[in-house]
Amino acid sequence: MRDHFELTSHDGAGRCGTFSVPRAGVTVETPALLPVVNPHVQTLPPAELESTFGAQILITNSYIIHGSDDIREPIREQGLHEFLDFSGAIMTDSGSFQLAEYGEISVTTEEILSFQHEIGSDIGTPVDIPTPPDVSYEQAREELDTTQERLELAETIDTGEMLVSAPIQGSTHPSLRTEAATHARNTTLDMFPIGAVVPLLNEYRYADIVDLVAAVKDGLGQSGPVHLFGAGHPMMFALAAALGCDLFDSAAYALYARDDRYLTVRGTRQLDDLTEFPCSCEVCTTHSPAELRAMDDTTRQDLLARHNLAVSFAELRRIRQAIRAGRLLELVETRIRGHPTLVDGFRSFLDHDEWLEATDPVAKDTFFYLSAESASRPEVTRHHERLARLETPDDLLLTAGNPSESFTESWRLVPPFGPVPRPLSDVYPLTAELPDRLDREAYEAAARGVTRLVETHPDTAVTVYHDDWPAEALSLLPDRITVARLGETETDESEPTHSYSTAPDNDQ
Amino acid sequence: MRDHFELTSHDGAGRCGTFSVPRAGVTVETPALLPVVNPHVQTLPPAELESTFGAQILITNSYIIHGSDDIREPIREQGLHEFLDFSGAIMTDSGSFQLAEYGEISVTTEEILSFQHEIGSDIGTPVDIPTPPDVSYEQAREELDTTQERLELAETIDTGEMLVSAPIQGSTHPSLRTEAATHARNTTLDMFPIGAVVPLLNEYRYADIVDLVAAVKDGLGQSGPVHLFGAGHPMMFALAAALGCDLFDSAAYALYARDDRYLTVRGTRQLDDLTEFPCSCEVCTTHSPAELRAMDDTTRQDLLARHNLAVSFAELRRIRQAIRAGRLLELVETRIRGHPTLVDGFRSFLDHDEWLEATDPVAKDTFFYLSAESASRPEVTRHHERLARLETPDDLLLTAGNPSESFTESWRLVPPFGPVPRPLSDVYPLTAELPDRLDREAYEAAARGVTRLVETHPDTAVTVYHDDWPAEALSLLPDRITVARLGETETDESEPTHSYSTAPDNDQ
Repeated sequence: MRDHFELTSHDGAGRCGTFSVPRAGVTVETPALLPVVNPHVQTLPPAELESTFGAQILITNSYIIHGSDDIREPIREQGLHEFLDFSGAIMTDSGSFQLAEYGEISVTTEEILSFQHEIGSDIGTPVDIPTPPDVSYEQAREELDTTQERLELAETIDTGEMLVSAPIQGSTHPSLRTEAATHARNTTLDMFPIGAVVPLLNEYRYADIVDLVAAVKDGLGQSGPVHLFGAGHPMMFALAAALGCDLFDSAAYALYARDDRYLTVRGTRQLDDLTEFPCSCEVCTTHSPAELRAMDDTTRQDLLARHNLAVSFAELRRIRQAIRAGRLLELVETRIRGHPTLVDGFRSFLDHDEWLEATDPVAKDTFFYLSAESASRPEVTRHHERLARLETPDDLLLTAGNPSESFTESWRLVPPFGPVPRPLSDVYPLTAELPDRLDREAYEAAARGVTRLVETHPDTAVTVYHDDWPAEALSLLPDRITVARLGETETDESEPTHSYSTAPDNDQ
Repeated sequence: MRDHFELTSHDGAGRCGTFSVPRAGVTVETPALLPVVNPHVQTLPPAELESTFGAQILITNSYIIHGSDDIREPIREQGLHEFLDFSGAIMTDSGSFQLAEYGEISVTTEEILSFQHEIGSDIGTPVDIPTPPDVSYEQAREELDTTQERLELAETIDTGEMLVSAPIQGSTHPSLRTEAATHARNTTLDMFPIGAVVPLLNEYRYADIVDLVAAVKDGLGQSGPVHLFGAGHPMMFALAAALGCDLFDSAAYALYARDDRYLTVRGTRQLDDLTEFPCSCEVCTTHSPAELRAMDDTTRQDLLARHNLAVSFAELRRIRQAIRAGRLLELVETRIRGHPTLVDGFRSFLDHDEWLEATDPVAKDTFFYLSAESASRPEVTRHHERLARLETPDDLLLTAGNPSESFTESWRLVPPFGPVPRPLSDVYPLTAELPDRLDREAYEAAARGVTRLVETHPDTAVTVYHDDWPAEALSLLPDRITVARLGETETDESEPTHSYSTAPDNDQ
């Protein structure tokens, strides 16, 4: 549908792709980070963003340029690329942010799109209405109508090779976000910024952000690229990427540097609180925090901005690498331990499991069981769905121990998946690596798997030999099956002549 | 006791300190990493370890030097510092590793300690017996006797200003490790390598390692520095530091580089599997994996070793920074999500909670509740212990809602801590940040807190108004208290005239 965006690999709903920006003649590897460049004050020269940090795309604000007498004409004359000295793709914002901040702006969508085209922008933006979180449905609905009119207007404007974004609004009403996304997808516009999430980001409302992004993706399907507009903190890139966000933009690298704030993938630190730099970037290996504190403001801010960008770009590389390797959720499990609100975000994320697993590749790297949350991963749900479709014999043993010849078939009983036919044992995700000491959630998920199998195979007599499952998991098993603990099966009436070893299978 | 080692800050059992090495005139900041330098083949020049990576101490092998005709005399003449071109502290190993590998070596403790002194080592090592894991108690006992004889012999040898280490053995028998540690502490020797853990590290047996280190620390008390001998992978430094390990040594940086293995704090990657480098170090920001693959072996190994060291030293800075800030367990919660076996290690770690909290400072940075494991953190146990010592009124309400005047006092009811007198609400760890969606473990820990209070205050009538706790937590509450759900307390006979809001306190 949008042939400038091609998906190259998936991991859950997360994906790597290539975003071809025709006017720039540039292909951007996604997920990607767009450093925000202020046309007046360039914290770091855009040429260095490209050469030192590998930025393939940046974003600047056409509304500021439009309103600034000192730079408007030079930029109109030279074009943005020459003015900024940047050969990658340049996206321009429209003034919507200023509209949200100041309530009014002096340009129309028609004017600003033409202006963006005129100054050489590669991706333009209409003037959408960034409805803040928590407003009434009616206000969000009404403002969304205006945004949608602007998008439809934008479709009609001739902007040559310049791509045009279709911002998606709807405040904190998921149904409106889904509707807005469906509408945007049905325009001829080219990329999808999810708007007005900055207030949610500022308040660490990651669970709400997850629900909104999921609602948007629900409307967009696989269309893209999807831009989480205003998201610039590396602590949340992995979670957002796992939802299928393709683009992030960072003003944070410069804004935080101005306040002596130091970004890490585990949160923000104040320069004053640091005795040593917990990072391997060039700034952090050649300076101490005390040295930075002794510097003049400009030098210190320059160095902090460099660190902030280095850590952000490294995280994007790490995310792309994790997606390619099928290890994105393992990375997310690490990252969410940066802040309790990210844990909330991940728990919301896992609520969307059926949707998340739709694009998940069937085979990936080894599944790592890393926390109680791992029991709710989409791979577990998918295995339970698969159980419904498997053929079963009349008489089936599910056992944590060795097979028994007293049953027609013996399947393995493996938390968090539940029943596992032996031929599937070598197939992802059933090759999972688990801690020896499992949490209840793993056993409970396995019990749900057993229940799913039993419910979908009413003619099969199922027997479960478990290895001392917790009571909570046992209570989830259906009544009509035979359940015994390994080692106590000798005295079990249904199976009086056999004993079972608790030794693990060697092939596990 | 050992005045060359001074502790500067604590976080749980983790600690920052300064290790003064008199012969080198150098003070090492701990936790510290000792790169292993092969006296024959220096993967990276020691001078660069110092200037580029900030190494304050390294380790090399005196047994190899002793047996190598080509370098023994030059080193004897110039001294180790000049030969290696390194001005930091130099520790020398004795050949115990070779003894473990080949079953026999040709030097005695007396000879090798004298030789180490002669070549200018700053920290020497006797010839201990590195008993492997899983051997019988008898074998471990017998070999430990030999090690202990060697340590006692080492005490009698005049080695001038050179410090001498007291390796601690005992295989996988915690009682022997504790005994060995107590013996070592009572010698006059200066530092404490925990020996023969490499086979456990190679098999990812982190739960066993945790139990052994805990057993050793039990015998050593606050003595140190403690060296986890052979631990060189940054994925486990944080967990080991949280147990109170002060020194690590890395041969991994070079050995892994030789096999095209790339270290990360989340595990090892094969160079062949990488499309992009997930790191911000100089090597990873100026090269791509494809470029490295195309290089000759020497150049590639040099660059990989540089990355491996950069990520290892950055992790040590991060750990020291986390200890100073009182955030070490938050870092550990992140790191253990690198591998299921590290989760096992952390669960074993939390079993040692009473011991861990002995040295924990009372006030730290905010407690982050990041997983079900957080409910078992030592701070929670300590709060429960404190509850036993608090004065209570005759009639006490513990409530997740607002205070009630129908009771003599109303305390807050806060998972995972349980009862919290309002004046303590602003005190660490009760200022904890929690996810909105808590796991059962948080409520169950709170219920254990209630139980502790009730058991230690038999004359207090306790009423609990909870905000919809899970059944598992409610079932842990003692029978003899009144329990009601907020919002259902209007019909509660014990409190018929009041209603309670479920709105959170503003001061939380």
